[in-house]
Amino acid sequence: MTTAQDILVTLYPGERDTEWERSLIEKCDGKLEIRWQSNVKPDGTHRPPTEYDPDVLKGATMLYTYAPLPIEVVPNLRFVHVSSAGSDLWHNHPKYLDKSVRFCTTSGSNAAQIAEWVIGVWLRFQHKFPQYAELQKQSSWKKFPLFDVHDSVGARVGILGYGSIGRQVARVCSALGMDILAFTSTPRDTPESRRHNAFNLPGLGDPDGTLPSQWFHGKTKDDVNKFLAQDLDMLVISLPLTAATEKLIGKEQFEILSATQTFVVNIARGPIVDQEALIEALEEGKIRGAALDVTDPEPLPAEHPLWKAKNCFVTPHVSWHSMSQKKRCLGILADNVEKFLKGEPLLNELKT
Amino acid sequence: MTTAQDILVTLYPGERDTEWERSLIEKCDGKLEIRWQSNVKPDGTHRPPTEYDPDVLKGATMLYTYAPLPIEVVPNLRFVHVSSAGSDLWHNHPKYLDKSVRFCTTSGSNAAQIAEWVIGVWLRFQHKFPQYAELQKQSSWKKFPLFDVHDSVGARVGILGYGSIGRQVARVCSALGMDILAFTSTPRDTPESRRHNAFNLPGLGDPDGTLPSQWFHGKTKDDVNKFLAQDLDMLVISLPLTAATEKLIGKEQFEILSATQTFVVNIARGPIVDQEALIEALEEGKIRGAALDVTDPEPLPAEHPLWKAKNCFVTPHVSWHSMSQKKRCLGILADNVEKFLKGEPLLNELKT
Repeated sequence: MTTAQDILVTLYPGERDTEWERSLIEKCDGKLEIRWQSNVKPDGTHRPPTEYDPDVLKGATMLYTYAPLPIEVVPNLRFVHVSSAGSDLWHNHPKYLDKSVRFCTTSGSNAAQIAEWVIGVWLRFQHKFPQYAELQKQSSWKKFPLFDVHDSVGARVGILGYGSIGRQVARVCSALGMDILAFTSTPRDTPESRRHNAFNLPGLGDPDGTLPSQWFHGKTKDDVNKFLAQDLDMLVISLPLTAATEKLIGKEQFEILSATQTFVVNIARGPIVDQEALIEALEEGKIRGAALDVTDPEPLPAEHPLWKAKNCFVTPHVSWHSMSQKKRCLGILADNVEKFLKGEPLLNELKT
Repeated sequence: MTTAQDILVTLYPGERDTEWERSLIEKCDGKLEIRWQSNVKPDGTHRPPTEYDPDVLKGATMLYTYAPLPIEVVPNLRFVHVSSAGSDLWHNHPKYLDKSVRFCTTSGSNAAQIAEWVIGVWLRFQHKFPQYAELQKQSSWKKFPLFDVHDSVGARVGILGYGSIGRQVARVCSALGMDILAFTSTPRDTPESRRHNAFNLPGLGDPDGTLPSQWFHGKTKDDVNKFLAQDLDMLVISLPLTAATEKLIGKEQFEILSATQTFVVNIARGPIVDQEALIEALEEGKIRGAALDVTDPEPLPAEHPLWKAKNCFVTPHVSWHSMSQKKRCLGILADNVEKFLKGEPLLNELKT
C-alpha cells in the first residue's frame, strides 16, 4: 500500500541505486514511488523503447530516461528528466509539445569528462601522440622536428556554444594559457547575461563567464562566419542540435577556417557538421585535423569514409563516459524532483 | 675591430637569430660579441662537442649550450647558460666545479609544453584513446563500458619536484578539478618558502604555491615513500637527476603505488626510475600505466623491453618540443646576460 502521489520511473544502466531512492523518498516525505529498469539489456545492447516491462511504466507521472518512450505507455507524465545534455530526440514528442509537461536535462553532469576529452584530443594532436605511438610500435627513437610542435600558450580557441561543456573547456584552456573566444546565440553584454544559470560542478567551469577575452553572438550564418574568421587554432562545437544548427559547419565555414587550419572538435551532435565538407577539408589540408565523438548517423557504418579521413579521430559517442556520471545525474534528478514537488524553480529546465 | 669585453658563444639549432643578437648587444652597450653555431649538423644529428669550429669557440667567456664542451676548447668561460632545465650533464665538469664560474638554466622555458605533454598522456590513458584509435582502424563503433572511464574530478595527483614544470602541471590539474599534492626536498611551511623564484611564463604555473592541498618534503626514501602512500591516481616525476634521486622510484615504491594503481609519468630523467622494477610493475598490473618521455639510456635501444611494456607510452625525449622554445630560451638568456654584465641577481642560477 503506497501513499505516493507521484510515480517516478527511472531507466538507467548498471545497478539500481536503492540508497539514492531511499534518500529521495525521504526528502519528498514519502509522497513518491520510485521504480527502475535498466535501459541496457543483459546482452549489453540498449533496450528499445518498446521493450520495457509495462508494470514498471504503468501510471508513471515522472520519467528519467535517455530515449523517448511512446506516449501510449506513459500517458500520465507531467515531468520528464532526460539523462543527456541534449533533448533533440524529444522535440517532436507529444509530451514535449504539451506545454504543461515540464522537461529538464542533466546538462552539466558530463561537462568535466567531455572537456577532458576535448583537451585530450587537442593535446594528442598538437603533440603528435599518434605518430609517436606508431614509432613506439617500431621501437624507434625517431624524433619529429622541434619546431613541428605548437604548444598552447597564446593559441586561440573558439567555443561555439558556451554552456556547461564549453565553459569547462574554457577553464582548462585558460590554465594552458590559451585565448578564449565564446559564441552564443543571444548577446551577453552584461555580467548578468554572461552567468551560467544551470547545474555546475563546484569549482569547475566558468559560472560567471569571465574567461573569454571576446564574446560573439548571433543566429545567422554570417554571425557564425564572423566568429570563425578570428584565426582560431581550435574550434569546439558544443551547441545543441536544432533546425538552425543543422549543417551549420559546411564547405563555406571550412574555407574560413583554412586561414589558420583550425583543429575542429565536435562533441555536440553529428548533424551540426556537414560531413562531406569536413572530409574534403581534411583531405585537402584546409584544416589541420578533427576529432569527433559524434557522427551522422550513429553508429557510423563501417564503410563510411569518415573512419579513414586524414587526421581525423573518431570515437563512438563516449566522451561523456565516466564512472561518476550516474551519481552526478541522479544528484541533479533528485534535486529537481524535490524542487518540482515543492514548486520551486528547476535546474536545467527546457521550454522556459 | 671590437670593443667587446665578453664573447658569448651560442649553440642552438635552427636559424641564427640576428635580430635577437642586435637587441642584446645594444642592451649591453656594445660590450659583447655574440657568435653562433648550430648544435645540429646538416644531416639532422647532434653535433658532437668536439666538432665545433675552433674559431667560433676561441676566447669565449660566456656560453649558451645544451651539451658540455671540453674545458680545453673553452678555458676562459666565466658564465655558462644551459639550454635545458636540468644541469646533470655538467656536474663533474671542471667549470661547474669552479666556484667562480656562474651557471644558469633555462628552467621554466619548457614548462608549458611539458605540462601539456603530461596532461595529454594522462587524459589519453584515462579516456582510452589508444584503444579507440585501434577500433577506428577497424571502422568499429564498439564502446567500452561507461564505468571503465574515471574522469579527473577529485582524482589525486602527486607532483614529485614542484618546480616550473610541476607547477604548470598543477595549474592544469587544478582546472580539471584534481587534488594536488606537492613534494619538495626542503620544507615549504611558509608562504614565502612556497614561492617560485625562477623564470615563469606570465599567467601560468603556480608562482605563489597556492595550488597544492598538501605539501610533503624530505631527502630520504622514507620521506618519498610517505608521499607515494597518499592514494595517488597520477604520480608526476619532475625533479632533477642527482645522486639522491637516481633509482628513487624502484620496486618498493611501485609496491606502495599499487594500492591505487597510480599512473606514473616521468618527464625528468630516465635514471630516476628503476626501469626493471617499472616493467615488472606494469606487467603485473601493480600500476595502471606509465608514460615516459625519458629513458635510461637514451636513445632507448630497439631491443629494450620498455618499448613493449604493458600500458606504457614512450616518446623520445620530445615533451619539451615547441615552436616557441627557442624564443623563450633566448629571452631568458638575454635577460641573464644583461643582469650578469650589470652585476644583478640572475634568474635560474645554479650552485647558489
